[in-house]
Amino acid sequence: MQRIINDPSLVVEDMLKGFQRCHKDIIHIDDENPRVVISNFAKDKKKVGIVTGGGSGHKPAFVGYCGKNMVDAVAVGEIFSSPTAKSFYDCIRAVDQGMGVACLYGNYAGDNMNVKMAMELAEDDDIEVRTVVANDDVASAPKDEISKRRGVAGEILMWKVGGAKANQGASLDEVINAAQKAIDNTRSVGVGLGPCTIPANGKPNFSIEKGTMEFGIGHHGEPGIRVEPLASAKEIAKEMTALVLDDLPFVSNDEVVVLVSGLGATPVMEQYIFFDEVAAILEEKNIHIYKSYVGNYFTSLEMNGLTLTMMKLDDELRKCMDEEVETMGLTQFRRK
Amino acid sequence: MQRIINDPSLVVEDMLKGFQRCHKDIIHIDDENPRVVISNFAKDKKKVGIVTGGGSGHKPAFVGYCGKNMVDAVAVGEIFSSPTAKSFYDCIRAVDQGMGVACLYGNYAGDNMNVKMAMELAEDDDIEVRTVVANDDVASAPKDEISKRRGVAGEILMWKVGGAKANQGASLDEVINAAQKAIDNTRSVGVGLGPCTIPANGKPNFSIEKGTMEFGIGHHGEPGIRVEPLASAKEIAKEMTALVLDDLPFVSNDEVVVLVSGLGATPVMEQYIFFDEVAAILEEKNIHIYKSYVGNYFTSLEMNGLTLTMMKLDDELRKCMDEEVETMGLTQFRRK
Repeated sequence: MQRIINDPSLVVEDMLKGFQRCHKDIIHIDDENPRVVISNFAKDKKKVGIVTGGGSGHKPAFVGYCGKNMVDAVAVGEIFSSPTAKSFYDCIRAVDQGMGVACLYGNYAGDNMNVKMAMELAEDDDIEVRTVVANDDVASAPKDEISKRRGVAGEILMWKVGGAKANQGASLDEVINAAQKAIDNTRSVGVGLGPCTIPANGKPNFSIEKGTMEFGIGHHGEPGIRVEPLASAKEIAKEMTALVLDDLPFVSNDEVVVLVSGLGATPVMEQYIFFDEVAAILEEKNIHIYKSYVGNYFTSLEMNGLTLTMMKLDDELRKCMDEEVETMGLTQFRRK
Repeated sequence: MQRIINDPSLVVEDMLKGFQRCHKDIIHIDDENPRVVISNFAKDKKKVGIVTGGGSGHKPAFVGYCGKNMVDAVAVGEIFSSPTAKSFYDCIRAVDQGMGVACLYGNYAGDNMNVKMAMELAEDDDIEVRTVVANDDVASAPKDEISKRRGVAGEILMWKVGGAKANQGASLDEVINAAQKAIDNTRSVGVGLGPCTIPANGKPNFSIEKGTMEFGIGHHGEPGIRVEPLASAKEIAKEMTALVLDDLPFVSNDEVVVLVSGLGATPVMEQYIFFDEVAAILEEKNIHIYKSYVGNYFTSLEMNGLTLTMMKLDDELRKCMDEEVETMGLTQFRRK
């Protein structure tokens, strides 16, 4: 295992120490729970609190989106494992200011269970918590079982919208509605060309034969729809874009945000090559790109591959996407 | 070769098309030379122009640092190859506004030759061009042959300082002096755990046996000082930090910027684990971190490994580091 780590069973703990030291301007770790990362901006004004959480190994997700105008507190799990209910609960308590808390997270069994338990604990404290469960991964279940779909990189857009809405002074209902609309308008799909190795296991989490790719792969190596011969960037873009466009569907004259994320070991150069092919297809279909993101926004350790995410915009979502944000994973100026 | 590309010989061209489409708010490609990327902010005000250039495959370097308050124009080479003299010259012409141009680049034979030729062409146009040649890689030559050292991730800090200084309205001499001071105060070292594959070659550019690491490796797989058994993050940090600290030297009460960059396939999690060990050593030595950057800031395709860079600050450099900047690779708000 070619890794720069200390004790493989302490990678999350060691990472968080470095993360806190590096980003002390933006975040801090909770005094009592070392698996709770809190934005320094969380209580700058009275607003709805935004909480998320998930397994580690997806950096910048999840802790990298904690900061100004995005996520207020993040519950941190072990590699590819849900945070505890206690950590979600501690996040909720840390950021509630009486206006309630929006817990915006991805659809995984462990996270669902732990968030539910955290909400029961919060109820005893009279903290109102509502959730949006991201399910943007088209490949993870058919459309008539949409609630079974997993959340992937579309979560970033959900946090961006929810965080911006809360910052605008919206009520909990308004924040939840905007974040739910964001994810309802969002579709993603992934492709895998190589596996990753969880340090504590020491072995690749799955295998992909050279010359092939797994279409529809999940963020933890969950099996995709099919294994195919490795195609050109143009062909991969065509296949991925078709699945995403048809599912919502996105149609002529739609305005969209496009997010291409590498899964870890895919050079950013390739992500731009892929993005250019996606953009060409959208242009041909008269679908307008309002804003695009290309880079390692939601990874799976050193997995080789990428995800394509698209969100259809309306005025409310556009306004939220334009807001200034300052986190480790995403910093942008307010769009004029 | 598990890659998401089209024609392996056109990866740079294809990448640039995607890069332009994605970042049209920040940069554009020159009308006549497709290997010249120009900042949209380059002529917002009259100032010294900042030019750089280098081989591709290092993203965000070099094009990713083109934008507001950093680099005004970038000459783009093939993978790991120098841009042409013509491209450097076209960059110089594109950003000169009569105050002269600072060409801030890394110490590689091809770049040196091509920048020199570009300067001769610019002289015929009566454009004043001065250079700073980054040589921050401690492992690439002994201290008594410091002018032979290569430039690596320290270039980012040189561009940050030079770009900020130009934006403050400084003269060409002042910009050059600040950028030269930045690189003179900067030291870097790299470690490699795995190679990368140039698409047009189709084979890894060098090999590193499992269980070993190459200490002092260059950004293109140039041989390091020694091959060693793969150590813990703590041990690697100790070895790299010692080399960097002793060379300048950095001493008690110094204030520094620390930049840890992954080389491509090293999970960001590991970079934070490594950074935490570096920060602990600096704390022990009473060296104060003013600002730190951890992430994939200067890569080599999917190479596994990282670089450590440190710059000693004074008031002028600190003020330059605090300036607002907006590029694909680095966006930060003005530090209050």
